[in-house]
Amino acid sequence: MNPQTTKDTERVARAALSRLMEPQDAAGLALVQTAGAIDGLRIATGQLKAGPELEQEITSLLAGNGTASWPGIAASLKRWAPRVADLAPERDLTTMKRLGGRMIVPGDDLWPAQLADLGIQEPLCLWWRGSEVEIPLARRTIALVGSRDSTSYGASVTGDFAYGLGQRGYTVVSGGAYGIDAHAHRGALSGGTGPMPTIAVMAGGVDRFYPSGNEDLLRAVANQGAVLAEVPPGSAPTRYRFLQRNRLIAALAAVTVVVEARWRSGALNTAHHAETIGRAVGAVPGSIHSANSAGCHRLLRDGGAVCVTDVGEIAELAGPSGEALPLDQEEPAAAHDGLTLEDLILLDALPLRSTSSVDKLAVVAGLSPESVRAGLGRLGLLGLAASERGAWKRSKNG
Amino acid sequence: MNPQTTKDTERVARAALSRLMEPQDAAGLALVQTAGAIDGLRIATGQLKAGPELEQEITSLLAGNGTASWPGIAASLKRWAPRVADLAPERDLTTMKRLGGRMIVPGDDLWPAQLADLGIQEPLCLWWRGSEVEIPLARRTIALVGSRDSTSYGASVTGDFAYGLGQRGYTVVSGGAYGIDAHAHRGALSGGTGPMPTIAVMAGGVDRFYPSGNEDLLRAVANQGAVLAEVPPGSAPTRYRFLQRNRLIAALAAVTVVVEARWRSGALNTAHHAETIGRAVGAVPGSIHSANSAGCHRLLRDGGAVCVTDVGEIAELAGPSGEALPLDQEEPAAAHDGLTLEDLILLDALPLRSTSSVDKLAVVAGLSPESVRAGLGRLGLLGLAASERGAWKRSKNG
Repeated sequence: MNPQTTKDTERVARAALSRLMEPQDAAGLALVQTAGAIDGLRIATGQLKAGPELEQEITSLLAGNGTASWPGIAASLKRWAPRVADLAPERDLTTMKRLGGRMIVPGDDLWPAQLADLGIQEPLCLWWRGSEVEIPLARRTIALVGSRDSTSYGASVTGDFAYGLGQRGYTVVSGGAYGIDAHAHRGALSGGTGPMPTIAVMAGGVDRFYPSGNEDLLRAVANQGAVLAEVPPGSAPTRYRFLQRNRLIAALAAVTVVVEARWRSGALNTAHHAETIGRAVGAVPGSIHSANSAGCHRLLRDGGAVCVTDVGEIAELAGPSGEALPLDQEEPAAAHDGLTLEDLILLDALPLRSTSSVDKLAVVAGLSPESVRAGLGRLGLLGLAASERGAWKRSKNG
Repeated sequence: MNPQTTKDTERVARAALSRLMEPQDAAGLALVQTAGAIDGLRIATGQLKAGPELEQEITSLLAGNGTASWPGIAASLKRWAPRVADLAPERDLTTMKRLGGRMIVPGDDLWPAQLADLGIQEPLCLWWRGSEVEIPLARRTIALVGSRDSTSYGASVTGDFAYGLGQRGYTVVSGGAYGIDAHAHRGALSGGTGPMPTIAVMAGGVDRFYPSGNEDLLRAVANQGAVLAEVPPGSAPTRYRFLQRNRLIAALAAVTVVVEARWRSGALNTAHHAETIGRAVGAVPGSIHSANSAGCHRLLRDGGAVCVTDVGEIAELAGPSGEALPLDQEEPAAAHDGLTLEDLILLDALPLRSTSSVDKLAVVAGLSPESVRAGLGRLGLLGLAASERGAWKRSKNG
């Protein structure tokens, strides 16, 4: 086969494998990594027999990735066998073309390099609905995630953050669900200034916009950004796939921000995926009376998350590429902020309405008359003290 | 002099010194530590000359405590001289007795041992208004601090925390000011179960209840708890003394909790004192739209503070003596929490209304029929799957 044909065959093989194996099927991913996608598919479908050497390699690879005991390839083959008859990768690829999309595999120019940080958990391929625009690097991408049952607080914070991140050219990744996810996509679509304002990573196939209440929104995300999934068209969004999908959201972005989450929430799962691969996690604080902030506070308490209250703080977590922004909460410095202890004591001793002599000030302040005179000079220069007929008072700024 | 007379003389000397020197007068504290209170007072008032040896000792002591350059005892003497004529320690001690209080010095049985953690910054004495009840150990004492201009959120959180801490027998320390401080004292007075429910540490003399709007509250604190200050009766609560007072609040308690604070706030100063002497700092999260929570979020971001959302979390910070409390936010574990990945996938594949055969489930779940059968057995035992005429569906709990 010439290289182009090999590449095409590899692509078709990965399309098939992504239907055969559930996301993050450790044995399957190890098989593909060891034998390659083409032979891996032939082995997985029973057309080729895996020798003991290959099996040993897979065992070592799995052991190196935390799977200590592996029942062996036979058990996996049994798991995959029921789906072999359903494989139709060319049909799936055609479907994507028809939907104005494509499928990408590791090594493609369009493949997001940051997914390599998932190691053996890197997906076999991505099914992508939307225009052919490059997916930004991790440091230009922020994940905003949270509960479906968001409060008005969560909605407003998410909308503001997504809009503000969009204005700074960041891509906002989320999961396309109701609540925080939807507000994140919407805010990014309206604020976005870059070529890909937002990405929705789905747990099911991208042929269907799920949940149906978000259909219009997800269509807009596909038109202006990207809708991605690692499962092929037609796949149902099962609970298991939701949990695995979260690792892709975490891996695409430099920072995962949890805006609102209950004590138990899928958003915390995304945060843990982010931590696992060394990405930053931000959590938005909220009222301690709001159950929808309990998960965020849990993340803050556990020490894994950084408290974020504005877009500037999120950008800071994303690293040096984030433009520095003046902290808008910074209140103007008080005039007496830089004073020495002695001058602060003296300032305290100065009357506001009447005036006071140097000797009197020395007693009140507990300073020598010389120190009082020197201090009054300094305070006078700063506009904090004023003299009237040889006696002193605090000036209006003091 | 016999020992008792020496002790009385020392007490009178410290009473005088506390009027002569401002709180945390480094040179003064070093002088007392080096020469003792009695000779220290004689030197500070010019009755005794400090030899070069003593001066060298003070210089070393100050250098060891971070004061690199010291102008020498002469400069300090000039600072203290204007107040020498005003000293009347016996009168001050009589005043305290008349107010139903006392003055305590390090070494007294009633002296709170935890103040020793302040090192050279330990106060010379404490002026104490209230009954003669032991001040609890740090691990039974919690500081609740925050802004004067508290919001209704801050008021309710502070009240709840103080009441709950009181119910658990903790002593609540605060600064007697309006806002968070007042809510802390009030909550502790109503919830308190121990012999000293609350302590107010004042910046000015304890003869006057300041601010006047808190007079009734502070009278109640003195009656049921304690009102303390390191400055003698009649001293004005200057800005400088407020800042120094904060170190006493921090040192008395094992944990300083900042409930509400602006970006710049005296409460942050208390938190930094606490950090400096290795005490735990808690910060209460709030809305990112509330300027009164910006200081708390700043503490959380800087990494020095732990996010606290209830009394149990505060008690946890106070250490092992805090009674463990079940986390009331803990939601009941979902039935599927402990499942293996395979069983989770299988559970997802089980239909809710119709039923499905083992072979069909094998295809949908991507598992071998043997695995499906084994998994259905496990799910059935957990009450998550149910069989009807040889086919399977999810049971109501699944």
